[in-house]
Amino acid sequence: MSLDDRVARLLALFDQAAFPDHMGMHLRFDEERRALVDLEPADHLNHGFGDVHGGVIATLIDTAAWFTAAVRYDAWLATVEFQTRLLEPAGGRSLTARGALIRAGRSLAVAEAEVHASDGSLIALGSATLAVTGLPLPT
Amino acid sequence: MSLDDRVARLLALFDQAAFPDHMGMHLRFDEERRALVDLEPADHLNHGFGDVHGGVIATLIDTAAWFTAAVRYDAWLATVEFQTRLLEPAGGRSLTARGALIRAGRSLAVAEAEVHASDGSLIALGSATLAVTGLPLPT
Amino acid sequence: MSLDDRVARLLALFDQAAFPDHMGMHLRFDEERRALVDLEPADHLNHGFGDVHGGVIATLIDTAAWFTAAVRYDAWLATVEFQTRLLEPAGGRSLTARGALIRAGRSLAVAEAEVHASDGSLIALGSATLAVTGLPLPT
Amino acid sequence: MSLDDRVARLLALFDQAAFPDHMGMHLRFDEERRALVDLEPADHLNHGFGDVHGGVIATLIDTAAWFTAAVRYDAWLATVEFQTRLLEPAGGRSLTARGALIRAGRSLAVAEAEVHASDGSLIALGSATLAVTGLPLPT
Repeated sequence: MSLDDRVARLLALFDQAAFPDHMGMHLRFDEERRALVDLEPADHLNHGFGDVHGGVIATLIDTAAWFTAAVRYDAWLATVEFQTRLLEPAGGRSLTARGALIRAGRSLAVAEAEVHASDGSLIALGSATLAVTGLPLPT
Repeated sequence: MSLDDRVARLLALFDQAAFPDHMGMHLRFDEERRALVDLEPADHLNHGFGDVHGGVIATLIDTAAWFTAAVRYDAWLATVEFQTRLLEPAGGRSLTARGALIRAGRSLAVAEAEVHASDGSLIALGSATLAVTGLPLPT
Repeated sequence: MSLDDRVARLLALFDQAAFPDHMGMHLRFDEERRALVDLEPADHLNHGFGDVHGGVIATLIDTAAWFTAAVRYDAWLATVEFQTRLLEPAGGRSLTARGALIRAGRSLAVAEAEVHASDGSLIALGSATLAVTGLPLPT
Repeated sequence: MSLDDRVARLLALFDQAAFPDHMGMHLRFDEERRALVDLEPADHLNHGFGDVHGGVIATLIDTAAWFTAAVRYDAWLATVEFQTRLLEPAGGRSLTARGALIRAGRSLAVAEAEVHASDGSLIALGSATLAVTGLPLPT
């Protein structure tokens, strides 16, 4: 399958993924087929102190890293672990997470993601280990 | 403030936290004042392959670790980083994350959390670094 | 191979491992076949501020986690990633890292390790993802 | 203190640090004052399977991240946690770790490091949280 075919398939898969949609996330790919995940501020994404919950930032990082790596495989990837580093509050700004592929091995992949606010500030970053399973992507 | 007063205050704070509520999470504390976060399975929590999204598991870990540490402080804690390890699929089972305090320092705290399914299986675990800010908890 | 045979084989393997020996580490196993790695304080293990270098603590954690997981496999394990959390200075005390097996899967294992000082203080902790390779252990 | 004065001071501090020297590491800074740590292959750095021990790679990452962040402060930095990702074996090649500063806050810094082999291959990477202490750098 070509990279562009995989991108189309992953965009369709994202539309089937209830959770990121429930959170209001939007997926796209840049010219290098790195995943970008956009998120507008919304009250239901906040923790008790009025800023975006760390779990939302973690979801952005997990999603951007996962889809960036998934472009390189025909199989389903299982997230093994990922780390989320929170650098500054989102403060009501729109957010975009961008993935970066570090390694696409036979059985394991490593990908990173950075979350920037609409004014360019680096809000958070993280990295993930993904296992290449024997399961085909759902169609 | 006594530990029990802090527990009451944190339970009220959780009710103000839009995101965990939006996801259907419920907070309680055990006798050692460790936070427990319960989550029932729901379609809107799933990724495209039909199991719970890694971002949901990360939110459980972040929340259980944060509230377990927060019992020890009068100030707001800022999550610096946390790692999420996914061990097996949730497979439609109810989940409970339980926090454990590792260290409550003057400026930094470390807490862990484990996520078990209703049948006792260990689904995920993680750990977090939290910074003690100069901000009081919101009331 | 029995667990006890594997323990014997791993103790022999440790003796072939130049680096931990170069650092003065000693390996043993407890009754549950968890690896323990002992280290006496020594000037050559210190950073420029006079306490044990973080890289030494990381080596203790990596080694205790790796050998604890390795007891469960006939194959060589490749460390994929590990996190090291430093909680307090060693301050000239003897150190012991003890591993704990979290999951021993077909292709991946997860193990943790805690580093205690001789007076029982928890100095550091960490966790590791290990990949099960197709390579047999060296004999 | 100017950045160049700090670089000079940190190079002197590295010379006092017994452990990296014991391992044969060499510190330098590039034009952007990012720390580079060089290491030649040596038998005493290896694990039982004949390649560089993960603890050595962790030490390279910790050291490159720490010195890259330390250029921005007059105070001693305490490493809070760091993660090490091992991507491929060193295979007898010379290694160089290069740090990158992500954030230099008032009380916390975040830095990353990549470890490349002499042929340019990315061998490992990692990131660290560092706490700014009230202690001056040793002179």
